[in-house]
Amino acid sequence: MYDRQDLTFQLFDVAKLDHLLAHPRFDALDRSAIEGFLDAADHIAETAEPLAARLDETPPTYRDGKVDMLPEAQSAFDALREAGLIGGPLPETYGGLGLPETVHQALAFVLSAANIGLTAHGMLTLGAARLIESFGTTAQKEKYLPPLAEGRFTGTMCLSEPHAGSSLADITTKAIPQEDGSYKIIGRKMWISGGDHELSENIIHLLLAKIPGGPEGIKGISLFIVPKKRVDDEGGVGERNDVALAGLNHKMGYKGITNCALNFGENEACIGELVGEPHNGLRYMFQMMNEARVAVGLGAAALGQSGYQASLAYAKERPQGRHPDEKTPGSGQIPIIEHADIRRLLLAQKAAVEPALALGLFCAILLDRIELGEETAETDALLLDFLTPIAKSWPSEFCLEANKHAIQVLGGAGYTKDYPVERLYRDNRLNPIHEGTHGIQGQDLLGRKVTIKGGAAAQAFVAAVTADLKRPTDDKDIAAFQESLKQALDRFGQTTMAILGKTQEVGVRRMLSNATLYLDFTGHLVMAWMWLRICLAAEEVRRNEGDSDFLKGKVQAARYFFNRELPRTKGWAETLSSLEDSAFAMQADWF
Amino acid sequence: MYDRQDLTFQLFDVAKLDHLLAHPRFDALDRSAIEGFLDAADHIAETAEPLAARLDETPPTYRDGKVDMLPEAQSAFDALREAGLIGGPLPETYGGLGLPETVHQALAFVLSAANIGLTAHGMLTLGAARLIESFGTTAQKEKYLPPLAEGRFTGTMCLSEPHAGSSLADITTKAIPQEDGSYKIIGRKMWISGGDHELSENIIHLLLAKIPGGPEGIKGISLFIVPKKRVDDEGGVGERNDVALAGLNHKMGYKGITNCALNFGENEACIGELVGEPHNGLRYMFQMMNEARVAVGLGAAALGQSGYQASLAYAKERPQGRHPDEKTPGSGQIPIIEHADIRRLLLAQKAAVEPALALGLFCAILLDRIELGEETAETDALLLDFLTPIAKSWPSEFCLEANKHAIQVLGGAGYTKDYPVERLYRDNRLNPIHEGTHGIQGQDLLGRKVTIKGGAAAQAFVAAVTADLKRPTDDKDIAAFQESLKQALDRFGQTTMAILGKTQEVGVRRMLSNATLYLDFTGHLVMAWMWLRICLAAEEVRRNEGDSDFLKGKVQAARYFFNRELPRTKGWAETLSSLEDSAFAMQADWF
Repeated sequence: MYDRQDLTFQLFDVAKLDHLLAHPRFDALDRSAIEGFLDAADHIAETAEPLAARLDETPPTYRDGKVDMLPEAQSAFDALREAGLIGGPLPETYGGLGLPETVHQALAFVLSAANIGLTAHGMLTLGAARLIESFGTTAQKEKYLPPLAEGRFTGTMCLSEPHAGSSLADITTKAIPQEDGSYKIIGRKMWISGGDHELSENIIHLLLAKIPGGPEGIKGISLFIVPKKRVDDEGGVGERNDVALAGLNHKMGYKGITNCALNFGENEACIGELVGEPHNGLRYMFQMMNEARVAVGLGAAALGQSGYQASLAYAKERPQGRHPDEKTPGSGQIPIIEHADIRRLLLAQKAAVEPALALGLFCAILLDRIELGEETAETDALLLDFLTPIAKSWPSEFCLEANKHAIQVLGGAGYTKDYPVERLYRDNRLNPIHEGTHGIQGQDLLGRKVTIKGGAAAQAFVAAVTADLKRPTDDKDIAAFQESLKQALDRFGQTTMAILGKTQEVGVRRMLSNATLYLDFTGHLVMAWMWLRICLAAEEVRRNEGDSDFLKGKVQAARYFFNRELPRTKGWAETLSSLEDSAFAMQADWF
Repeated sequence: MYDRQDLTFQLFDVAKLDHLLAHPRFDALDRSAIEGFLDAADHIAETAEPLAARLDETPPTYRDGKVDMLPEAQSAFDALREAGLIGGPLPETYGGLGLPETVHQALAFVLSAANIGLTAHGMLTLGAARLIESFGTTAQKEKYLPPLAEGRFTGTMCLSEPHAGSSLADITTKAIPQEDGSYKIIGRKMWISGGDHELSENIIHLLLAKIPGGPEGIKGISLFIVPKKRVDDEGGVGERNDVALAGLNHKMGYKGITNCALNFGENEACIGELVGEPHNGLRYMFQMMNEARVAVGLGAAALGQSGYQASLAYAKERPQGRHPDEKTPGSGQIPIIEHADIRRLLLAQKAAVEPALALGLFCAILLDRIELGEETAETDALLLDFLTPIAKSWPSEFCLEANKHAIQVLGGAGYTKDYPVERLYRDNRLNPIHEGTHGIQGQDLLGRKVTIKGGAAAQAFVAAVTADLKRPTDDKDIAAFQESLKQALDRFGQTTMAILGKTQEVGVRRMLSNATLYLDFTGHLVMAWMWLRICLAAEEVRRNEGDSDFLKGKVQAARYFFNRELPRTKGWAETLSSLEDSAFAMQADWF
């Protein structure tokens, strides 16, 4: 479930999709075409949403080395394929629709809100295709992109291994060069989403491995295409390629897509193709990771949105209790949305899920502008680099919190399988873990993004926020938001300098020890900025079309965020600036 | 899983159980007897813990009007029965062991950490027995208490109805007086934990219903004993009493105990016995509720503790990555407990679960002292009244947060059924909902407890904290904790006055609109107080026995809480004092 009115407002009024569509490459696309795609996604979501509950109840199982899945999953996946929604942003030459990333992400948001597992198959397939599109040879593109774009093949990312999850430097999967230029792959991969199933004709694994004799650690990692079934040069699917499903992980949620342990080359008959240059695999993978991480954040926002809508609908319908000052005996019960604390639980959700969507779309617009090679592409790339860990992790953490609130609105009913909110809470718990844990994102932000290119990314961020601080407004609430955000931005600058300034004195280990808190701190600032952008857009709509309940709700939810959430950054700034060390100084034996 | 060393430290050094055991009523009990009971609980927990995972995987089902449950559940329940752990605190006259509440709660903590569903059967049975013990006739006590104490019968609390969950004023179940003094019960009850199963010979429902012609609303509610099967005056179990299992609720967790919809008197053949006076049922129920709410909080703390121990064990074993300043190529991976952010996730759990246990035991000691009629009983009762909503809700909210951290420590592994942490997270999500939701507890605290008897309960609370602020210490960390806590206590006083002082001006509805935040605010203060008490106890042990890693860990975890958590009360105090109204002013149509 999601709010179509909000999504179109966010796309056209906040993210200004029209500006992007004005580019000649998108001549064929206008607002009504986009609405048509959204209709198509809505249509698929109608069937996909009840299926999500059924797949949760009856998840895929492992039987005789194969994945057994509810047959309805096949028809839902086929519907997705047939609507062209898998390879949407790929070029038309390769069977895609040439959609802007922003439109694709909006469609993925609709589908994720209905069924995150199903949508994940599409996300992974597109991710695999993009790696080949960016770094593969023409022959590889011609061979693999059309069936991936079509969803006839699906894709995976094979990074982790049983002993190497977050620490990719330690992978041991080998790729041994063969005389014909191919590589023999030997190793075990773990946590592979969509790693095996029967939904597609073939599965194309994009796999990290080490070519023996290469550099140690991450500098010796290369990227390979490893199909489940061999593909001949004409694209024909042949025999199995010695990739074996070793087992399925049994997860607490996100059950609509398998998560697999895979063995490559048990019989020394697994063949892979190198992508790009040897030893550059991690760099390639990370280039693609920006998109994947933004997509994870949008998925988290979609799950949050879905829980928000479900709990909102319930709160409007369910009568229970009375106001505390209602003393009339026999007075009727009121809908729970009338209780202040239920409104808080709803508003807290709205205040989290809407700016999370705004940030995802903001990042998607940046991706599109970079892709189009717009004048601002260099700054856009810096800004995107800076925002990516936040776009991934803030929704993963705080839209999960929103799902917790959704359960609370429903009370006992929310704890049962009669409503979707408990499932959404379980589904969303994955998001702070995969595609780089919350902690890893913090290290990325404070340990890399803040300092790269002499702080240029952080400066691009400050400049972008400052531009919105200067936008004129006639609304005194919005002017107050600008003032609060300005103070928070100053706090961000001071805190960042305070931390970095102590590196010399305390060492990098301690400097980075509160990086996760720094991530949340910066994330809250970014979300306040997104609320400002939403409110400025709302003001513009109000000026043109008059006020409405919809627009009033935006300003009120922003008030909630500025009054209740943004002030948390004050305490966090103190903790961060002092390099508070209770966790750092804790010893393993003291636990 | 739990930490036996911590539990005995908390019982004897923090809660000073010895003082209680010095009472003549407990002549037969000394420390070694208590350790013996803990051994017995440990022994049962050994089998009960793996069973928790199996019951989660294969929960009870409804078949032909009966509950079908894994057979091992029966043997685990029998083990609990046979160890005398169900009716432990009941008088020996009625088949109990005459244990102090504090000891009973400690044993329940051990069992809950292993298997919360199993333990809940015991908690509900004891709750039912206590209602009969406190308000029943001698005949009722003689008839029902022995089989309940023994666990041959189990008990339930039948309060909610499909249309009346939090709002008990609206129940419609009828109790029609019969000529023989019994009552004919007709109605439907909902969310009844342990409402039906085959573990015991009979189920005794303690049920709220309205006698026709009585006062409206909560003043017309009476309490009844309604057995599943009729019991004759000699205690013999006879025919069914027209209580029908209408269905089971399918929950996201807490699956080791059924949750039922029950129909009473579908065939007009359901007979109940009145307990105490007509129309006093809710008062009776609430008197028992103190114990039940403390028990829920301790259950939440036990689930938090269990996740903490599981994630601690994993963090010590699992090698992954290196320190950020480790540049040596080929250096080995380090156990993840060496990473600062993992230590934070562990310390955050420790900082939540240990004071949550301390508060539960503190409340249990108060219950015991009240029960013994000690000199301080009146003040103790006021203090307990004040603390009860916090003892129920703080652990339910923040030990759930701890379970979230436990999953994060394990990463992908934590999201799978291979480890208990995901189940504990699901189990614990119930606790902010049942026995009065988080929101209801907030209303209870700010709307009743703070103001009852002219503020006497709040004053008892401030006096109790102040006494610990004045305790001498030679430890400068502990002295600093006292100073921070003093400031927080002042903030509590100022904030409370600021809120109450505006009631006249803004009305009770708005005054109470941030009651849930007030609950968290006060809860954080209480937990800081518990940390102070733990540290003062640790200092005493250190003085007598020398320092140890165990004791160092206490002070360090307290530092974490005082540095990272207690400062949140500053921002909350501002929000509360200003009666921040973004949620209150939000309109239903603006969402």
